Amino acid sequence: MLKLYYAPGTCALASHIALEYAGAPYEAVRLDFKAQQQRSPEYLKINPKGRVPALVTDRGALTETPALLLYIAQAWPAAQLAPLDDPFALAKMNEFNSYLCSTVHPYHAHGARGSRWSDDAAAIESMKKKVPQTMGESFTLIEEQFFKGPWVLGERMSTCDLYLYTIARWLKGDGVDPARFPRVADMAARLEQQPQVQKVLAAQQAG
Amino acid sequence: MLKLYYAPGTCALASHIALEYAGAPYEAVRLDFKAQQQRSPEYLKINPKGRVPALVTDRGALTETPALLLYIAQAWPAAQLAPLDDPFALAKMNEFNSYLCSTVHPYHAHGARGSRWSDDAAAIESMKKKVPQTMGESFTLIEEQFFKGPWVLGERMSTCDLYLYTIARWLKGDGVDPARFPRVADMAARLEQQPQVQKVLAAQQAG
Ligand SMILES: N[C@@H](CCC(=O)N[C@@H](CS)C(=O)NCC(=O)O)C(=O)O
Ligand SMILES: N[C@@H](CCC(=O)N[C@@H](CS)C(=O)NCC(=O)O)C(=O)O
Repeated sequence: MLKLYYAPGTCALASHIALEYAGAPYEAVRLDFKAQQQRSPEYLKINPKGRVPALVTDRGALTETPALLLYIAQAWPAAQLAPLDDPFALAKMNEFNSYLCSTVHPYHAHGARGSRWSDDAAAIESMKKKVPQTMGESFTLIEEQFFKGPWVLGERMSTCDLYLYTIARWLKGDGVDPARFPRVADMAARLEQQPQVQKVLAAQQAG
Repeated sequence: MLKLYYAPGTCALASHIALEYAGAPYEAVRLDFKAQQQRSPEYLKINPKGRVPALVTDRGALTETPALLLYIAQAWPAAQLAPLDDPFALAKMNEFNSYLCSTVHPYHAHGARGSRWSDDAAAIESMKKKVPQTMGESFTLIEEQFFKGPWVLGERMSTCDLYLYTIARWLKGDGVDPARFPRVADMAARLEQQPQVQKVLAAQQAG
């Protein structure tokens, strides 16, 4: 049985929803960030980076959202979460997920985790101030250039939608009005009605 | 014929070397960062993010190093740049590449590109100061925990080595002594002797 380590409100939501769509046998294990459980010696044995998500399989742990999303899509191909039989289409999926992971997620993280990149309180404050701009600009690129519609990659839903939905949930808290990105908002609203997503949201809100 | 857009000294080196190993038919197109060619209207049509690498194929452009590396490995499987027949092993490759892309590369970028995350000159200065620490800590994790040896993933060279080699070249400029990471340094020294790597380095240094 797989174990997914997550904390509510984090990027782990994307992998959690993907496991639900895949119909994979898994247990979701919640970490308490307020208690710094992601930095406990036990958890650092699972993920030395001290972050979520981590997916423990019978061959060992896997981390990094884009890697988990492709792994889940490949290991449960019947769920059709990725264009597995077309290397170019698959590269478009990985490109989008890598952009979220390497650029958009770090923009967001400069709001609450500025101490990763500076030890100076005023600098950390100044990073916070720029988050609405960087998140707004990157979502404008997504809305206008990368999002094909009705799903990120076009006619079929993919891991990109689960990941974009997860990060779009951060917009309001980042001081950006999600209504500025109507195509993304429409996708997110459709996805949120799916039973798989409802089930994961309920599980993360409970216990 | 593929076209790889690059600038010398950037992360595009990893994809450039991968194309050479793959034996792919490609042309390398150099952008002049000093002239801000990565932000020219022509280039933004290829990559609206204004970054390198971008790989133009007959089906369109691809960006993001981890996506390019997997694409090249899948499109030229004979080069054996990735464990393509084992989803778990492939996920370990993608996990490593995603860590470089989402965490280590951004640590480095806080040295010269702090204006992405703050508009304040003092804040940008303070980000620069932390680069030796964050690069040192992430390479310590790589050296001690992630690097299996003799290559990143174990017995076989993979895209991870090309990417890690590329980023390890930044250490000295980031104020970190590469000798602190002997296993990584040994891999880099072996890789650098390969004719494919020599050819790409010579091409990037020339005109
Ligand atoms: N590149 C990683 C980033 C993981 C990450 O930063 N997760 C955050 C939550 S969104 C975290 O665990 N933060 C805890 C901490 O920084 O202490 C991925 O995409 O999975
Ligand atoms: N996540 C992207 C990052 C690409 C990136 O940031 N490239 C840098 C060079 S290492 C760049 O083009 N910088 C130009 C600029 O910021 O203007 C990848 O891994 O390919």
